Amino acid sequence: MVPRLVSRWPLGLLRGCPGWRLAARAPGAPGEQSRRPRGPLKAGGAGDPACRGCSSTSRAPEVTPTRLRYPVQRLPFSEVSAEDLAAFERIVPGRVITDPLELEASNVDWLKMVRGCSQVLLRPRTTDEVSHILRHCYERNLAVTPQGGNTGMVGGSVPVFDEIILSTALMNQVLSFHSVSGILECQAGCILEELSQYVEARDFIMPLDLGAKGSCHIGGNVATNAGGLRFLRYGSLRGTVLGLEVVLADGTILNCLTSLRKDNTGYDLKQLFIGSEGTLGVITAVSILCPPRPKAVNVAFLGCPGFTEVLQTFTTCKAMVGEILSAFEFMDAKCMELVRQHLGLASPVQGDGNLHLNVTAEAFSASLLGALEPYVYAWTAEQRGSVSAEHGLGFKKRDVLGYSKPSAAVQLMRQLKLLLDPRGILNPYKTLPSQA
Amino acid sequence: MVPRLVSRWPLGLLRGCPGWRLAARAPGAPGEQSRRPRGPLKAGGAGDPACRGCSSTSRAPEVTPTRLRYPVQRLPFSEVSAEDLAAFERIVPGRVITDPLELEASNVDWLKMVRGCSQVLLRPRTTDEVSHILRHCYERNLAVTPQGGNTGMVGGSVPVFDEIILSTALMNQVLSFHSVSGILECQAGCILEELSQYVEARDFIMPLDLGAKGSCHIGGNVATNAGGLRFLRYGSLRGTVLGLEVVLADGTILNCLTSLRKDNTGYDLKQLFIGSEGTLGVITAVSILCPPRPKAVNVAFLGCPGFTEVLQTFTTCKAMVGEILSAFEFMDAKCMELVRQHLGLASPVQGDGNLHLNVTAEAFSASLLGALEPYVYAWTAEQRGSVSAEHGLGFKKRDVLGYSKPSAAVQLMRQLKLLLDPRGILNPYKTLPSQA
Repeated sequence: MVPRLVSRWPLGLLRGCPGWRLAARAPGAPGEQSRRPRGPLKAGGAGDPACRGCSSTSRAPEVTPTRLRYPVQRLPFSEVSAEDLAAFERIVPGRVITDPLELEASNVDWLKMVRGCSQVLLRPRTTDEVSHILRHCYERNLAVTPQGGNTGMVGGSVPVFDEIILSTALMNQVLSFHSVSGILECQAGCILEELSQYVEARDFIMPLDLGAKGSCHIGGNVATNAGGLRFLRYGSLRGTVLGLEVVLADGTILNCLTSLRKDNTGYDLKQLFIGSEGTLGVITAVSILCPPRPKAVNVAFLGCPGFTEVLQTFTTCKAMVGEILSAFEFMDAKCMELVRQHLGLASPVQGDGNLHLNVTAEAFSASLLGALEPYVYAWTAEQRGSVSAEHGLGFKKRDVLGYSKPSAAVQLMRQLKLLLDPRGILNPYKTLPSQA
Repeated sequence: MVPRLVSRWPLGLLRGCPGWRLAARAPGAPGEQSRRPRGPLKAGGAGDPACRGCSSTSRAPEVTPTRLRYPVQRLPFSEVSAEDLAAFERIVPGRVITDPLELEASNVDWLKMVRGCSQVLLRPRTTDEVSHILRHCYERNLAVTPQGGNTGMVGGSVPVFDEIILSTALMNQVLSFHSVSGILECQAGCILEELSQYVEARDFIMPLDLGAKGSCHIGGNVATNAGGLRFLRYGSLRGTVLGLEVVLADGTILNCLTSLRKDNTGYDLKQLFIGSEGTLGVITAVSILCPPRPKAVNVAFLGCPGFTEVLQTFTTCKAMVGEILSAFEFMDAKCMELVRQHLGLASPVQGDGNLHLNVTAEAFSASLLGALEPYVYAWTAEQRGSVSAEHGLGFKKRDVLGYSKPSAAVQLMRQLKLLLDPRGILNPYKTLPSQA
């Protein structure tokens, strides 16, 4: 087995401010932007008799349960009882899913690398319903995994054990749109592509765009602080998200759904929830600033003799067109050739400011991954890079947080988690490192 | 006395997303942008024998001590002893200021509305010095007011009683600048205008600009989440600030001085400190993204027959030039006339997305202010506006937070304060409402 390392350097942000996004994939694995499922996910689950509560079907025997694949121990949360199910049925009548077949897609991530064993999926429609659900779970010490479109890269949106899945799929209403300012207020479960269509019909665009737009939810985008194709031009969600409504672990509704661009009244609490991957609260509604739709979009494909010239081209473009430059990406010749050869993509030009390190090998190998990852993370830390760029930590990368953040910061993060979710019921086993 | 209400509507953000900035001024008071002091402040203090520790001079008898003008009670912090002074002298030798004359300018805000009675001003040069100072203060239960350029509007940067003033004035070193990405790392006490000159010589500009740029510090800008003249084009500091170094109340140094635009590794702790007005930690260094210097700046002054046409003009401009539109401001004819007449400004065109409500009267009247403010704040809350826009709460507006934020949010803010500063020594009497 001869692993090949391929680098694709999208220069949205260039050296000096790189965000390293690292992934090791087997050949034939889906390319991130091109093959991300655009409809509801239909990944198979099950096939593991040891995973209590999961059905045993032959559809996707390859997805090993997370608890078997990774060294992780279930925390002492309660188990869902018949009384709990009855209580949920009273809160969201007809929207308590316990059929194992229906649960499969929500137990497995789209990369098919992690798989939980949840036996209950809840589909609230309103913030009040989310509040009642969480109040019940908090009192009963039941763990909860909030789930949007389940398109994340790091296993943040599926349960690890038997956490209750709280889906935002039915929270898909636009609440308001202001045709002069371009401010959209909507529920967290709105699908990004549908929001795009909604605002484009009104001569605006969403300030973010992703390959997963056909299935990802705006609430999930905010919870993971998604970057995407328009980051260079319109900036991060920390600027474009104007307000949030969030339900805290104990069911308290925190209404910070303002539509103000300037509102320095107290601490900006919404920032706590942006990018916290559902571990500090459940986002139920979003207020977001949409830019006017550009009159035209132009793409230039340039060939440069060397990396120095790539940097010069970026500087020149940025100076000439300013903030109108939406994206800038660089791929080397070797990378283009390998992507064409291994992934069968006719035109590999897609992309946002990270080093995409793709390792191709004959088959997935845990030992190869185990040998590569510490080296790559240590090197990334040495360059003052991020081990996760815009993808977050989720389940898979929580234990490498220390490469990118000092211990005082990790300690403060733990204190914030304890403050906001003292029983730790919200998306456990995610974001924060496992306690040694 | 016939108060006249004048509205100036800068349409950076327009109706639907207004940030109401409210102030009542006597005629002849300085206009915010035009008369803000650009050198070190030389406001007189003292003149009040009841204010222990302040010298009694005749230079500025008009500035009533805050504790006499406002209903506020000193909290049970320790008082600075000779042993404390000796300890400070060991930490910052030669930079412990106790001369009442030297302290005057730091005890009074530039609006001359609030005045503290601090007897000690410390001028650290390094983060380690700040850390040692705070560790000592934390152990001794001494209250501290961090101070940058002291140019704020809400009394956030001066002591209320005898808090120790921790000045960032000597923390004025540029740490690094990256000529391709435009990322600047500098200490918190760098003066905004000097940073502007530094990056402009390298073909970049600072992403913010303020009338107070000649004296305000970048650390203070970040601590108050300053808006300013470039907000519309380059967005808020929450997007352009890439990293912060902060010293916590107990002296812990939190190094989040990354230069990454995408770094979703754990919670984004720096957001806690942006806009928290020195109440959660002392910002000691800043990493900030500077945009390329525009090739040209054009200003158009247009006359519109009515407000509908103003909105149409804004929409058209934004659609035509996109993010290159830096600012958009609207003043009605009555406003221009009154500003010219009362404030003696030849050209009143300056400005960022708020309703500037200027009330002109023969003299300052506490009873007029007391009659107007609750009405204006209640009306603002009804319109879902902010009672402070970009100016923060500081001392003067902390008790009106409830107009803009629900009680669950205020409660969470209090919990965050308690978590990060359990003894409450950092900038007490600011931001959070006084406990009833």
